[in-house]
Amino acid sequence: MLALDVGGTTIKSAVIGSDGARQLTRTVPTPVADGPAKVVQTLRDAARSQVAAARSADIPVAAVGVVVPGIVDASRGVARYAANIGWSDVPLRDLLRDELGLPVEVGHDVRAAGLAEVELGAAADLTDAMIVVLGTGIAGVVVSGGTIVQGHAGIAGEIGHIPVGNLEIRCNCGAFGCLEMFSSARAVSRMYAERTGSTLGADEIVARLGQDDDARQVWRTATATLARGLVCAALLTDPQRVVLAGGLSAAGDTLRDPVAAAFAAGMPWRDTPELVVSELAGAAGLVGAALLARDAAGKGPA
Amino acid sequence: MLALDVGGTTIKSAVIGSDGARQLTRTVPTPVADGPAKVVQTLRDAARSQVAAARSADIPVAAVGVVVPGIVDASRGVARYAANIGWSDVPLRDLLRDELGLPVEVGHDVRAAGLAEVELGAAADLTDAMIVVLGTGIAGVVVSGGTIVQGHAGIAGEIGHIPVGNLEIRCNCGAFGCLEMFSSARAVSRMYAERTGSTLGADEIVARLGQDDDARQVWRTATATLARGLVCAALLTDPQRVVLAGGLSAAGDTLRDPVAAAFAAGMPWRDTPELVVSELAGAAGLVGAALLARDAAGKGPA
Repeated sequence: MLALDVGGTTIKSAVIGSDGARQLTRTVPTPVADGPAKVVQTLRDAARSQVAAARSADIPVAAVGVVVPGIVDASRGVARYAANIGWSDVPLRDLLRDELGLPVEVGHDVRAAGLAEVELGAAADLTDAMIVVLGTGIAGVVVSGGTIVQGHAGIAGEIGHIPVGNLEIRCNCGAFGCLEMFSSARAVSRMYAERTGSTLGADEIVARLGQDDDARQVWRTATATLARGLVCAALLTDPQRVVLAGGLSAAGDTLRDPVAAAFAAGMPWRDTPELVVSELAGAAGLVGAALLARDAAGKGPA
Repeated sequence: MLALDVGGTTIKSAVIGSDGARQLTRTVPTPVADGPAKVVQTLRDAARSQVAAARSADIPVAAVGVVVPGIVDASRGVARYAANIGWSDVPLRDLLRDELGLPVEVGHDVRAAGLAEVELGAAADLTDAMIVVLGTGIAGVVVSGGTIVQGHAGIAGEIGHIPVGNLEIRCNCGAFGCLEMFSSARAVSRMYAERTGSTLGADEIVARLGQDDDARQVWRTATATLARGLVCAALLTDPQRVVLAGGLSAAGDTLRDPVAAAFAAGMPWRDTPELVVSELAGAAGLVGAALLARDAAGKGPA
């Protein structure tokens, strides 16, 4: 399966086997400054050249999965809107199918990453679990009784917008105190810039925790707010394990340890669910895209 | 079915048909001041006299359901602990079975009230719903895909302890900012007493909203905090409808309207689930007890 993960900074791609093993992994910059048409062209080029590379190497590619941020109409394969890419209503499924002659499935990057954890990652084989994907935004997947909780409109798991942060801070969504304004990679970067005037990536801020008090304060806010969000999710749905995934989870124990301590303190009257950091980390989106591709292949040529 | 609902203030009882219709409804004070043995004796007397009354009136009673606050071991029929009654490890199922010669089932009052809404109340026939029972404490039931979310340890739905309130206020559970410290009947009473020095019941405070600024402030805190809790639940599990039940829901639109406004404001980017007030209100616990009795009858004489 060819998997493509379109982000606001890079377009990642790989050919992924049914066991999650990745080959031909490539990353190219997303040309956001050149406008959405150029981003789409770069995505098409990346897809075409990966299919050609796979054929040269005798690696089978039966279908393509693409995950994108923002609002996605998965049933029609359309990228509806993404603020950080600037596109709207791009019919990615049809465009790539025509380009490649292969079945294509399009999905939401964070949700796909969560599904990857459920199928192949740290939540595999659990009947009750919660996956929280910490990327540019934050989203989650709730597994209950062996089934993914979909909800009435199919939009369950939106932990990124639960109001557990400072209620004076307004989110891009229009509400106040949303978790992703404090505990996403973008939020860590923003909070640090507000304190210091320096714009650094979340990974750079994590690297400075040993010698930078501003970094420590920002990290404390990010991890404490995340823990409150996890308390909400754990009390409402009672998972056996909570999996932290997405780019920010690359921080490993530097993320897990303070969150685990605050998580336990937030429910002192009962056992705390296990808290683990994903081993897929930033590749979860790509693996999720491969799972979408598998579904597309199952449907046969579109 | 004979249903008994033991609270910190009163013991309610009724004989309830399979359609939820109630007969022989009675309320006696809970003699908490006289100690737990006296409470148990009062419960036994109430149960015996109701069974006798039903027999005199030719109303069949096949089994008994009892719901109690605090910590309950439903599988053994034991009231493990309740702070507001003062009892611990009372084998209610065995005591009442021996007293009455009927099968008995014991359950948690708030959870039973939620189940009553799912089976016979405002959440009947919905596949995705959330019931929030606002009594002395707050608890909830999440219905997802037509099934009640149990969770790994069977304790899902504990919305009363999610941290969406003022984080400087410590809950009896040991954590900070728990919903039930702001939006339960007891919390409304406590917050009013802290402002005014006067101890009033939540119903009395609601009755003063038209002419008492302290009452208005307390109600604003209670309803705004509840709305934040509902936003968390709605975003995580995406119900079609949220049902407010329990004693505080007797306030009707005085409760529903400010909560609905804040609920919608908390998720401006998507449709808000329907928000309704239970028609069972304070009787939901009794109806839930009757459903437990039905289960006990189904098992035959114990």
